[in-house]
Amino acid sequence: MKNYLTIHPWKIIEQGFHPEYNRITESLFSIGNGKMGMRGNFAEDFSGDSLQGNYLAGLYYPDKTKVGWWKNGYPDYFAKTLNAVNWISLSIKVNGQILDLNKCETTDYKATLDMKESVIYREFRVKFKKGESVVVQSQLFYSMDEDNLGVLKYSVFTENFNGTMEIKSTTDFNVVNKETNYGEKFWKGISTSVNEDFGSVKAMTKKTEFTVNCTTSNKVFLNENIVDTKPKTLKSSQKFSHNYTLEVKKGDVVSIEKYAAIISSFFYDELKSTSEKLIERTLRDTFENLKKNHTDAWAKIWKKSDVQIKGDDSAQQAIRYNILQLNQTYTGKDSRLNIGPKGFTGEKYGGSTYWDTEAYCLPFYLYTADKKVSQNLLHYRYNHLQKAIENAEKLGFENGAALYPMVTMNGEECHNEWEITFEEIHRNGAIAYAIYNYTRFTGDDSYLNTKGLEVLVGISRFWAQRFNYSRKRNAYVMLGVTGPNEYENNVNNNWYTNYIARWCLIYTSKSLKKLKKKDPKQYNKVIKKTKLKENKEVKLWKEISSNIYFPFDKENKVFMQQCGFLDKEITSTDKLKKEDRPISQNWSWDRILRSCFIKQADVLQGLYFFSDKFTTKQLKRNFNYYEPLTVHESSLSPCVHSIIASKIGNKYKAYELFQRTARLDLDDINNDTEDGCHITSMAGTMLTVIEGFGGISVKKNLLHINPQLPHQWKSLKFKINFREVPLCINIKRKKLIIKNDSDSALEISLFDKKVTLKKGKNEF
Amino acid sequence: MKNYLTIHPWKIIEQGFHPEYNRITESLFSIGNGKMGMRGNFAEDFSGDSLQGNYLAGLYYPDKTKVGWWKNGYPDYFAKTLNAVNWISLSIKVNGQILDLNKCETTDYKATLDMKESVIYREFRVKFKKGESVVVQSQLFYSMDEDNLGVLKYSVFTENFNGTMEIKSTTDFNVVNKETNYGEKFWKGISTSVNEDFGSVKAMTKKTEFTVNCTTSNKVFLNENIVDTKPKTLKSSQKFSHNYTLEVKKGDVVSIEKYAAIISSFFYDELKSTSEKLIERTLRDTFENLKKNHTDAWAKIWKKSDVQIKGDDSAQQAIRYNILQLNQTYTGKDSRLNIGPKGFTGEKYGGSTYWDTEAYCLPFYLYTADKKVSQNLLHYRYNHLQKAIENAEKLGFENGAALYPMVTMNGEECHNEWEITFEEIHRNGAIAYAIYNYTRFTGDDSYLNTKGLEVLVGISRFWAQRFNYSRKRNAYVMLGVTGPNEYENNVNNNWYTNYIARWCLIYTSKSLKKLKKKDPKQYNKVIKKTKLKENKEVKLWKEISSNIYFPFDKENKVFMQQCGFLDKEITSTDKLKKEDRPISQNWSWDRILRSCFIKQADVLQGLYFFSDKFTTKQLKRNFNYYEPLTVHESSLSPCVHSIIASKIGNKYKAYELFQRTARLDLDDINNDTEDGCHITSMAGTMLTVIEGFGGISVKKNLLHINPQLPHQWKSLKFKINFREVPLCINIKRKKLIIKNDSDSALEISLFDKKVTLKKGKNEF
Repeated sequence: MKNYLTIHPWKIIEQGFHPEYNRITESLFSIGNGKMGMRGNFAEDFSGDSLQGNYLAGLYYPDKTKVGWWKNGYPDYFAKTLNAVNWISLSIKVNGQILDLNKCETTDYKATLDMKESVIYREFRVKFKKGESVVVQSQLFYSMDEDNLGVLKYSVFTENFNGTMEIKSTTDFNVVNKETNYGEKFWKGISTSVNEDFGSVKAMTKKTEFTVNCTTSNKVFLNENIVDTKPKTLKSSQKFSHNYTLEVKKGDVVSIEKYAAIISSFFYDELKSTSEKLIERTLRDTFENLKKNHTDAWAKIWKKSDVQIKGDDSAQQAIRYNILQLNQTYTGKDSRLNIGPKGFTGEKYGGSTYWDTEAYCLPFYLYTADKKVSQNLLHYRYNHLQKAIENAEKLGFENGAALYPMVTMNGEECHNEWEITFEEIHRNGAIAYAIYNYTRFTGDDSYLNTKGLEVLVGISRFWAQRFNYSRKRNAYVMLGVTGPNEYENNVNNNWYTNYIARWCLIYTSKSLKKLKKKDPKQYNKVIKKTKLKENKEVKLWKEISSNIYFPFDKENKVFMQQCGFLDKEITSTDKLKKEDRPISQNWSWDRILRSCFIKQADVLQGLYFFSDKFTTKQLKRNFNYYEPLTVHESSLSPCVHSIIASKIGNKYKAYELFQRTARLDLDDINNDTEDGCHITSMAGTMLTVIEGFGGISVKKNLLHINPQLPHQWKSLKFKINFREVPLCINIKRKKLIIKNDSDSALEISLFDKKVTLKKGKNEF
Repeated sequence: MKNYLTIHPWKIIEQGFHPEYNRITESLFSIGNGKMGMRGNFAEDFSGDSLQGNYLAGLYYPDKTKVGWWKNGYPDYFAKTLNAVNWISLSIKVNGQILDLNKCETTDYKATLDMKESVIYREFRVKFKKGESVVVQSQLFYSMDEDNLGVLKYSVFTENFNGTMEIKSTTDFNVVNKETNYGEKFWKGISTSVNEDFGSVKAMTKKTEFTVNCTTSNKVFLNENIVDTKPKTLKSSQKFSHNYTLEVKKGDVVSIEKYAAIISSFFYDELKSTSEKLIERTLRDTFENLKKNHTDAWAKIWKKSDVQIKGDDSAQQAIRYNILQLNQTYTGKDSRLNIGPKGFTGEKYGGSTYWDTEAYCLPFYLYTADKKVSQNLLHYRYNHLQKAIENAEKLGFENGAALYPMVTMNGEECHNEWEITFEEIHRNGAIAYAIYNYTRFTGDDSYLNTKGLEVLVGISRFWAQRFNYSRKRNAYVMLGVTGPNEYENNVNNNWYTNYIARWCLIYTSKSLKKLKKKDPKQYNKVIKKTKLKENKEVKLWKEISSNIYFPFDKENKVFMQQCGFLDKEITSTDKLKKEDRPISQNWSWDRILRSCFIKQADVLQGLYFFSDKFTTKQLKRNFNYYEPLTVHESSLSPCVHSIIASKIGNKYKAYELFQRTARLDLDDINNDTEDGCHITSMAGTMLTVIEGFGGISVKKNLLHINPQLPHQWKSLKFKINFREVPLCINIKRKKLIIKNDSDSALEISLFDKKVTLKKGKNEF
């Protein structure tokens, strides 16, 4: 817990410069527009500790796999998100002295990430060795309106001297990733050109051959008058600069507006001309206008997705921060993109797609955005179906069985740890569940009945082959898996995996049956495309799904996480010594595996997904059994436990666990924010608010609302868009106001009683 | 199966040149003297496929660990045996043309590894492009008499021309390992000096700073007269040469004798002077005499260790080959040395020590060598006890608990695969068993009662902490282990591991009790040294060892390999398709883990070690259950199954499995002999002969002999040295002759009946 940032409902503020936390601040001040983004690096020179990071959506480098002991089936590479062109660089010299916060005396420092605007503001005073003093103000954003554009405005006020000021504006594609397996460079230069008005640098990734062109141009002002003396230009390999030298007097202000158009071959064919044209257009506009277009676009996002918490500014700041980062990472415009665990805030985990997307992010977008966004997330997996089939074939499965990768950029598996890559197969379940979740919430079965069913058939085929019949148990068992709790490896009959696999088999069968009745033509299309042998395959799925073994402890009446769990010494996390935690950093792997301690929701993840299938008593028993065993060393864990705590009325635990997830990065709880933010777990935080405290769920085609306002909050207000009916839900201590912004009434279940939400305001 | 080598009882013969198998031949023709060795590389230039390898005992390089995903407790390095100075190089030019079997026409090629002598003989005719024809004969050996000396004699007969012959004799320390994690060079040069009589090159390993000096000198003869024209000398970094140019006539023979003294800091302080003095002494002697001293030393080894099989030359050749390689690898003179899985025949597996030594090699030396050899193997582990304690501490164990490493060079763990490094802990059991095995066979309890008990206490402490009490089972369980069958990872209650752990606890307690009675003073020494709390610790060991859970299948009445084994689909290896085998190369790891197929003896390894504790019926039932499930994809597997097959009277299976182990390398059965020979599994082959067919065992202080001569053999003759009584056992079809070479009679059990072996010949 660092606590050096100011609590504010709409802003993240670093008051006073904290170079010792600079990497953390850089992560937290990351900005982006879904197509590109960057860590909150400084524009001016900085010789202190920093992790440079500029990222472009969709681009990756297949870094050669690094592995101690090769196992059959391992992939050849791990796709890595790319650190790309550094365009913000402004090297400032005052009377020959470099402006560098690591070397100059810095006072009155304030940096603000305005969450409403997605703009970074910085302001500070710098005193140079020879006594010159300047005040700097800057603004930086990635336009949400024109998503190929980065904009920086940087002003320097001369406080106490006459002299020269040099500004060297550089655009540099000589960048490397910090995280490489073999120290390889991922980019090779293509061309660099520069004239007095603008410059372009073009580079290509090795192997994948993604090409990127970055064109930048500057407008320089002296006391608000444009400076027309032409800059000196400099050019070297993959890098160019514009060098401005100005004579300044005390009281003068020099401003530079820097515009960067970054165009990649992932989206465009003509790179250089597209980016140069965009720069030309941009130069004709004003900074103020460009910024307004950007903040207007953000206002639309906030209108749909904002959550208002009264009485708890810390929670208010946190939830908005999470909403901001998720929207900076993914806007849902392109089904080829997805949500990396670190978004545009760092390189860690390679920026690839995990099951986090389906389990946590999809519902976030379901609640807060147009359904097209969720659709695109579903299409992403549909587009990878063939690769998932090939992935399963590599592991010995047949007949169109699909195993989606644990980690992927383009549908191919990247991960290389057998207990994860080959065994953490529950991810397949989450991908199927997302189809169900989308259909259930939107009421739109068009995806399910076309592409969705193809995915479901592939996944069900996989499960059917992955179960085996055990003569001894006279039941189907699933051997050698790793559940969501990665502190158990290669276990038999993981309750969660068995459960979600059974659910997949049943859901696929039922959905097929429904479609057959509803639209036989479309049904036949699906059958033809998947070559499904209904009599044989669906019959087998039924046979399996009705004979699956589930470990259960009769004594405590709880589902057992896996076979043999009760061989362990069962204790509780409060028995752990302080120096043991986190156990992932202090215990050897075998000790962790043998212990009863759970990294993240496992049985409870299943109870969360399928809470409508279990009684509150069952939820309670299992929560009370597993929560004391759970160390929550995955960022994806506390949110699920918090939601279940809300469901069973344990407000104290629900709030405690919410705090652990909500401010994970802002308070650097896991001591790893310097690597980047936990983007996907931020979606989990939103779920604790909407599903946990907000009590939103869908059961039997009906929206259920069972709010549980934490004692610490005065009110909670959020919007959801349920089946095209926009609802604004305002939960107060003694009142519940639901605004129905559609023209028609909606029947819902409120505190388990059916009520009708008429158009407009409804008070309860 | 390549079958390009000639079957011969005492020789390995490559008749006709097989460049396509050159790496295999190089492995098979490896020679050594326990202190150093080399692959059967050619002295002359060879541009064809080859793996150069010269190895020096005890030396290693700590190659930085390569791992995909780091786990707490992993070691920082993997110790690698070093490819060292290449001293045999002789570059021959005839009228300016290089003698290179890859480029010249080669006929009448014959290479022989004479196993009786441990000498490589080569003979061949080479025709050069311009028509010159020469015949080459060479002999190469590492002296077993003077174990710092390598000797090469190389003769070239001019058949059809007059002209010049150049011989460039080079000694080169510019060598690299093929197997490196990061392409590092392991050696750095120290000094090189050369004069007309000899040259020296000295190099040092990086990090470990082992220094090696190699001095070589040549004697050149023309038609048996020494040539006294001085050679030209050449020197470059870590390399020197002597260049001889001779005018030759048709019918002339040019011979060069090359002597290399290789002295390492592992054994000596003064390297250069020691090696130069050795070369001086050597030069005063003759090649013939040096060779005689060498073969005399080998004659002594063969006298003790030879096995004679009549009626099966293939088996005869194989068993002698195995005996040869084991003695070339380890002579038991130095307790700091051990037996790497590839000996001096290749780099694979880093040349480090595995549990193979205790489980397989120790009994080999017990039977065939002086007991000092076995003692040194035991001392090796005793000397590493402190490191084993530190290793256990790293994993969270306390109070002097010792976990010996899976792979080691100096006592530190090298391996980095969690399921092996942290979980294949049964190795501790084998290390304890070796103490018992030595004591049982030699009748000498002096090691046990001094150093051995310290080791046993450390190991027992480990087991006591590694078991945990399961409330559900009301028994002690051992979770998260990998048994000898590495095709199962992270299983609970591996029967073998539980069994040997229980045995350790009991054996340690009993041995302590015995010593207390026999020699209270020594007992107190042990107690003091180990700080053993008898009342507490030994009591706990008793409590645990009498309440351990062992999985058992009531239906088949067999011990279950681990918990949950019967969840599997039980089938048999004959159901596997040809293209599936070996499954290690054709199946993904998860598929292997889920299958019922067993890599190597696991339950049966336990039944082998403790066969006196089980009835023949039990052995039979378990053999018949597990053998059909075992794919024997470890070279250490068939030997154990063969021995048990002999014990249960299944001669057919015993012989079939013997064949799989005996000629593993000679016939390149696993397609991997090119990497080097399976040295430790060769010891296993010897056990199939002595313990399996020979029927040798020790039960209740009595030597048991229950021979089972395979139908294919006329007779089997071998020697063992049981408790200082040398016995020569000659098993014929209808007769058994046991020669007692001591002065006193020995009571034994023959076919389970007590008989007395009088001095001299005993016929049965």
